[in-house]
Amino acid sequence: MASSPEAASTSHQGRSGLSQQRVIELAGALDERLGRQIAFITELDKLKGVLRRSLLIDTSRYENTAEHSWHLAMLALCLAEYAGDDVDLHRALKLVLVHDIVEIDAGDTYIYDVEASRGKEALEQAAADRLFGLLPEDQAAEFRSLWDEYETRDTPTGRFAYALDRLQPLLLNAASGGRSWREHGIAAHQVRAMNGPIVEGSEKLWSLAAAVIDEAVQAGALIPDDDVPRDHDA
Amino acid sequence: MASSPEAASTSHQGRSGLSQQRVIELAGALDERLGRQIAFITELDKLKGVLRRSLLIDTSRYENTAEHSWHLAMLALCLAEYAGDDVDLHRALKLVLVHDIVEIDAGDTYIYDVEASRGKEALEQAAADRLFGLLPEDQAAEFRSLWDEYETRDTPTGRFAYALDRLQPLLLNAASGGRSWREHGIAAHQVRAMNGPIVEGSEKLWSLAAAVIDEAVQAGALIPDDDVPRDHDA
Repeated sequence: MASSPEAASTSHQGRSGLSQQRVIELAGALDERLGRQIAFITELDKLKGVLRRSLLIDTSRYENTAEHSWHLAMLALCLAEYAGDDVDLHRALKLVLVHDIVEIDAGDTYIYDVEASRGKEALEQAAADRLFGLLPEDQAAEFRSLWDEYETRDTPTGRFAYALDRLQPLLLNAASGGRSWREHGIAAHQVRAMNGPIVEGSEKLWSLAAAVIDEAVQAGALIPDDDVPRDHDA
Repeated sequence: MASSPEAASTSHQGRSGLSQQRVIELAGALDERLGRQIAFITELDKLKGVLRRSLLIDTSRYENTAEHSWHLAMLALCLAEYAGDDVDLHRALKLVLVHDIVEIDAGDTYIYDVEASRGKEALEQAAADRLFGLLPEDQAAEFRSLWDEYETRDTPTGRFAYALDRLQPLLLNAASGGRSWREHGIAAHQVRAMNGPIVEGSEKLWSLAAAVIDEAVQAGALIPDDDVPRDHDA
């Protein structure tokens, strides 16, 4: 089943060793389609190096987007009962696994950084073109449609996935004592505005979010609404 | 929907701030079941601190088990076509997401460390009892059955999930130039023995693994079989 030593030696000619590119070539030599899939899979490794603004609960470091995506998938499994009957749970899992892959090229945008959020869309579209474009065409289209469904939130499944993506950093920020909120000087009304869409994915999970936000204000981790000028756009 | 400031103030009495425990209590006050789910979900954060022996492809650091689990889920999505028709792809996704959660208590065991692998089973069973036991009983049983199916590999779905879990570090090790293999002095026959079960999950993916192993030997990243005494148990 393995290629003969002679064949391996020949294909290795002029190369100094193993590399991501070489692994992709080996897969492509077996099957062009597999080569494209391995190109995408190895490129995904870079998501482990994209840092978010949420600290781990033990506050030892910032969370990266790959482990965040796994955590979201676990929320999807554990909290499935709070989704409406019209949510496709298998697809919701896929949405949360795929939703942040564009950050490999576009980086993570802090949701409370309005300035940075403005240029985000064009960057993310280009990232989706390049990254999903590594895959065979049918799969590129499938992954793009997953990402689009997450971004537009025009289905119950997309809204449930989005609710989980809002709830997870809220839980992390609160469980780690609210340090990330304190450091960035975040106000309760900002958190309520940004996390309000949770209610469209699940009323129960919004009740939890609201209780956590109230508690964070009480604990001094979020600036109370009376202390800051209201943002009428929020 | 949020509790009133008075109520929050009362429930906050005597506490100095936000914490993982406080977030669990808030969830439990809404609903005992939700409290258990949030206890499990916040505990899962610790999997991000469990380090494996595989380096990221850019060799900047070791991979942790949470991001590894996400990467496996992406392999499950991208390589689904190489699974047999008898594989339940939704369940395969769940298996790879859940399969390493026990490492929160039991740690990661390097697959080539035979000594450490001996005490592993009892540790992992205790870890499964504690961790899945945080959940409501029905979910604890569900997650335990997922983990058991992965561990025993007595279904096509379990064997496919296991194949992905073997293939992913092989791809990472090769794409990062084989440094982890070199550092641990790993031989080709060890890698073939440990990764042989890939063939039970997918013949095509085993062809890829075999080609990568041959190439790693050619590149000097794995010790060729002629250079070491054979292990007849392998």
